Amino acid sequence: MISIAIHGGAGVILRENLSPEKETAYIHALTETVRTAYAALENGASALDAVELAVKLMEDSPLFNAGRGSVYNAEGKHEMDAAIMSGSDLSAGAVALVNRVKNPVSLARAVMEKSNHVFLAGAGAEEFAVKAGIELANKDYFHDEFRFQQWQKINGTNAAKLDHDVSLNEKKFGTVGAVALDTSGNLAAATSTGGMTNKLQGRIGDSPLIGAGTYANNQTCAVSCTGHGELFIKHVVAYDVHCLMYYKGMSLAEACNYVVNQKLTEAKAEGGLIAVDRFGNVALYFNTPGMYRAMKTPSEEYTAIFK
Amino acid sequence: MISIAIHGGAGVILRENLSPEKETAYIHALTETVRTAYAALENGASALDAVELAVKLMEDSPLFNAGRGSVYNAEGKHEMDAAIMSGSDLSAGAVALVNRVKNPVSLARAVMEKSNHVFLAGAGAEEFAVKAGIELANKDYFHDEFRFQQWQKINGTNAAKLDHDVSLNEKKFGTVGAVALDTSGNLAAATSTGGMTNKLQGRIGDSPLIGAGTYANNQTCAVSCTGHGELFIKHVVAYDVHCLMYYKGMSLAEACNYVVNQKLTEAKAEGGLIAVDRFGNVALYFNTPGMYRAMKTPSEEYTAIFK
Repeated sequence: MISIAIHGGAGVILRENLSPEKETAYIHALTETVRTAYAALENGASALDAVELAVKLMEDSPLFNAGRGSVYNAEGKHEMDAAIMSGSDLSAGAVALVNRVKNPVSLARAVMEKSNHVFLAGAGAEEFAVKAGIELANKDYFHDEFRFQQWQKINGTNAAKLDHDVSLNEKKFGTVGAVALDTSGNLAAATSTGGMTNKLQGRIGDSPLIGAGTYANNQTCAVSCTGHGELFIKHVVAYDVHCLMYYKGMSLAEACNYVVNQKLTEAKAEGGLIAVDRFGNVALYFNTPGMYRAMKTPSEEYTAIFK
Repeated sequence: MISIAIHGGAGVILRENLSPEKETAYIHALTETVRTAYAALENGASALDAVELAVKLMEDSPLFNAGRGSVYNAEGKHEMDAAIMSGSDLSAGAVALVNRVKNPVSLARAVMEKSNHVFLAGAGAEEFAVKAGIELANKDYFHDEFRFQQWQKINGTNAAKLDHDVSLNEKKFGTVGAVALDTSGNLAAATSTGGMTNKLQGRIGDSPLIGAGTYANNQTCAVSCTGHGELFIKHVVAYDVHCLMYYKGMSLAEACNYVVNQKLTEAKAEGGLIAVDRFGNVALYFNTPGMYRAMKTPSEEYTAIFK
């Protein structure tokens, strides 16, 4: 059994603001990404390789708020975060506040495999990227006129916005992630984000935090979250799904449903998560009107934006 | 019922390397800190105020690897991390990689109370400190000849050391933390650290990560950890104690004992934690030869270093 699921962010996606052309572009990007990563799994790629590949493909797309499509912070700069975790041995890597790394998820993986640390941030993370031979990109690569207008619209206010909150005619959404089960029975999760438009410089959300936005453990599941990062941190969301399965004996669907539709909804924490368990079951839960998502198993393929 | 516990780091403290004078100094500092914070609780201070106060006192002491006594990273700089969390509403604040903030725990509290974010790092965190009126300190304040020699001894090697691993005649230990229960039944936890000697620039450990090194929830307990940060991150240690109590129905002692002496020991993750539950019970667990620690309740006062 192999299985993969991806997300490209959750939020208040208004159908009237998503042109048919945009919707088609998102559906196409999500479907192509999940198919490519699934094919890799079929060819024997590890879950770790598959989630890194899927996240890289979305980081490289300007459609998603991660890597190339990252939003602007309050200083008009990009600050990207990412994490990756292997369920087989709990090894993990994470980076935060990098601005010239083409694929933050690959830097997170290098931190995991080539350093003694789990989490590197800022200039130190970029120095490590150079030493580890990670591909860099210049400012122009990350510049996107839509993102820049988004930022200009709220710059000077105190508002930090999930990018879907910015009232422009077209809206884009934050965070990408992937979870997978490979032919060896190993689980993995990865998450990457460009953060919140106009966020304070130095703000770190849940995405790169092991246990909050990203978690994988072969005994239970792999999880990647998207949503209001501050609230997801306080609720240690990804690890909570694991604990409900491991300590309470819930199924993947029960645990995800409880966390998203009960705990997070009661806490007014908007967002969602994707997860896969060790049997290959997939869960795609969100308490917002939409979540960019796709999944593929030997018996099912599915791509959707709205509920 | 009120209750407070503090730690000043866990590790391989060798009795032969701790002079009687040093041992007396540690015992005195720990006892004074726990008594001062306890007295504040008696006078109606919140658990949040008490843990901030206790951590500040230890940050101000050159004896502990936090604030003033922080170790040097691989670049010969100080990089400090801290977090604080309130069990009553899960509000939390955390900072990482700050180098000119006198009391990182107070900056963490300001992030919690005066920003829309939970976690700020690096230059952005320091900019916020200035705006929030947090006291800064210059490089001289953080300079300590012992710490500098510690760093010089392993600089140029790839080794990042918990400060107790540095083979000097006198050894000091990383991380400080506090947990408390106040008269209103609210729990709080705080942790602060100067990191690992010669760590890569930008490395973030478990201390400032909500759920890993620091967690508080009125439904169960407040926890502050100390130990090998990378492994504590992977095991989401502080939140794990909560989950074992909340989902499995374990007592505070059962949960802490299981996490420290079973899970962490099996994972070769050296360290310990302090915790207090909503009934005021205190737990001080570590799988190393020693942990600088103290606790005080209406019926008990205790300070110790070794097992």
